[in-house]
Amino acid sequence: MKQEHMDQIQKAAAAVKAKKVNHFYFVACGGSKALFEPAQYIMDRECDMAATVYSSNEFVHRAPKALNENSVVITCSHSGNTPETVKATEVARAKGATTIAFSHLTDSPLWKAAEYPIHYNWADESDASDYNNAALYSLIFHILNAMQPCEKYDRAISCIEKIPVLLQKNVDAHADAAKQFGSDYKRENMIYTMASGANYGVAYSFAICLLMEMQWIHSHAIHSGEYFHGPFEVTDFDVPFIIIKGLDECRPLDERAHAFCKKYSNKIVLIDTANFDMSDIDDDLKGYFAPLATGAVLRKYADEIADHRGHPLSVRRYMWRMEY
Amino acid sequence: MKQEHMDQIQKAAAAVKAKKVNHFYFVACGGSKALFEPAQYIMDRECDMAATVYSSNEFVHRAPKALNENSVVITCSHSGNTPETVKATEVARAKGATTIAFSHLTDSPLWKAAEYPIHYNWADESDASDYNNAALYSLIFHILNAMQPCEKYDRAISCIEKIPVLLQKNVDAHADAAKQFGSDYKRENMIYTMASGANYGVAYSFAICLLMEMQWIHSHAIHSGEYFHGPFEVTDFDVPFIIIKGLDECRPLDERAHAFCKKYSNKIVLIDTANFDMSDIDDDLKGYFAPLATGAVLRKYADEIADHRGHPLSVRRYMWRMEY
Repeated sequence: MKQEHMDQIQKAAAAVKAKKVNHFYFVACGGSKALFEPAQYIMDRECDMAATVYSSNEFVHRAPKALNENSVVITCSHSGNTPETVKATEVARAKGATTIAFSHLTDSPLWKAAEYPIHYNWADESDASDYNNAALYSLIFHILNAMQPCEKYDRAISCIEKIPVLLQKNVDAHADAAKQFGSDYKRENMIYTMASGANYGVAYSFAICLLMEMQWIHSHAIHSGEYFHGPFEVTDFDVPFIIIKGLDECRPLDERAHAFCKKYSNKIVLIDTANFDMSDIDDDLKGYFAPLATGAVLRKYADEIADHRGHPLSVRRYMWRMEY
Repeated sequence: MKQEHMDQIQKAAAAVKAKKVNHFYFVACGGSKALFEPAQYIMDRECDMAATVYSSNEFVHRAPKALNENSVVITCSHSGNTPETVKATEVARAKGATTIAFSHLTDSPLWKAAEYPIHYNWADESDASDYNNAALYSLIFHILNAMQPCEKYDRAISCIEKIPVLLQKNVDAHADAAKQFGSDYKRENMIYTMASGANYGVAYSFAICLLMEMQWIHSHAIHSGEYFHGPFEVTDFDVPFIIIKGLDECRPLDERAHAFCKKYSNKIVLIDTANFDMSDIDDDLKGYFAPLATGAVLRKYADEIADHRGHPLSVRRYMWRMEY
């Protein structure tokens, strides 16, 4: 990770340490919001304070009464231009909350709205230890360690440096499977995703960003636990599901959902992180880092289905093309 | 509301008051989980403590570190037999949390697992002031008032008694619209729902319980704010959306989503709670009570589409029919 980014992260963590904090709010839209789900999972597991995720405009209008100077509000927008997320950051800062924002664009409206802006890289794949999710994980472990010495801190920071290798190895290992997926599923107009725990965010962003937004394929990220309380009744031999099995504490939920689903659907795409090469990551951190590898692998699946459908991931009919 | 239920609610609220509470966890599965969404909305608006909703098995396996004797864990299962919810209640109680459980069945496993069980009615529609959501609202306002005198308390409790009239009037007013929906949409195999704020739970339960579970129709409850960050790209002239416009602070999100969606889809079913007869409910409580009326109205829509499809809402292929 670039020293400049590390400095920004350390400054933000020091600001959190200096305050009497009782609530972490993660606030963003769409793919950036999905990014926050594993961060909230880590906070739930490692920290005895409240950590909640909100879509930006819901946060602005709901205006939680608990939002005050003891809150930390962490926001993210790739362009730094998402109006709802800029507004959420402004609202939080006006309430006295500590505001930390991730953005790929410095000097963007979001950058200016937050007290502690953090830049992340995007363009160069070899630099994935400096991507949004890597920078976010670095912040989370810096904050955990700042509030109370965290035994996992040093190891987590060193695992972050191994993210580029982690992603590349597992993306390469899934090249054939991704091609097969693109070929087999190119005519589907509805594909469910399913996950739980640290991976739910990845399932959500694949459903709403990759499938719905970039491929115009209907989707819905089903929570593996919720599956049995309604959604499973749609399961049939010709209903496609992408099921992610995580490495975190919620894996039994994914295993149960997969075991049932495979009995009644002939169209299951299983992403089992137990088969990933996670050898560079410490055992007790594998569950936390699995979503990063899963996200990169699924991106490859999206590339392939886009290719087989002749529908580039960059095409939009509404987004950026009109006022909304 | 029956005096026996009121006694149970008051006893639970007194137990919360007696403790130094800092976090409310709402934990359930499927439709019962959806029931908790508006309760969490009310807590976010009226109370300066953390309030979070978890699917039961996620809660059990994630095991939030913040769960302790200062937590209140509120669970719900209609039958009182949902194993994940019983387990969540047991886990919470073992951690010293105050456990409150709603169930239609007394002496069920859930009833025995919780320190403060609360019974609710179901069979008789005239008694909707004693239903699960009514009992839950009563508990929420009793807790709010127990922790700190709540100006809305007396009025909220008296509005709860008016729920049967509220539901009946609005269900009756939507009889023709519901029939039309059943006829017009009976051949759709995919129907999205959309809402935000206090109504998101109703959109979620209509999607996963009524459409997916009871009609085997594909669905996904899109959050009105998230719609613009991915999902809206699937919008097309022939893609059906049920859009709920609420009366709470998040209504602008629903209005924006509807304004956009109606330009590109010819299949929009609008449930606008501004057109509901809410005259029995105090102005500043209308947003909180709208989801109850919306849920009852949507149930009528479900009855009609089931009737037009010859697929009774009671039919299941997996649920209760096998081990899973």
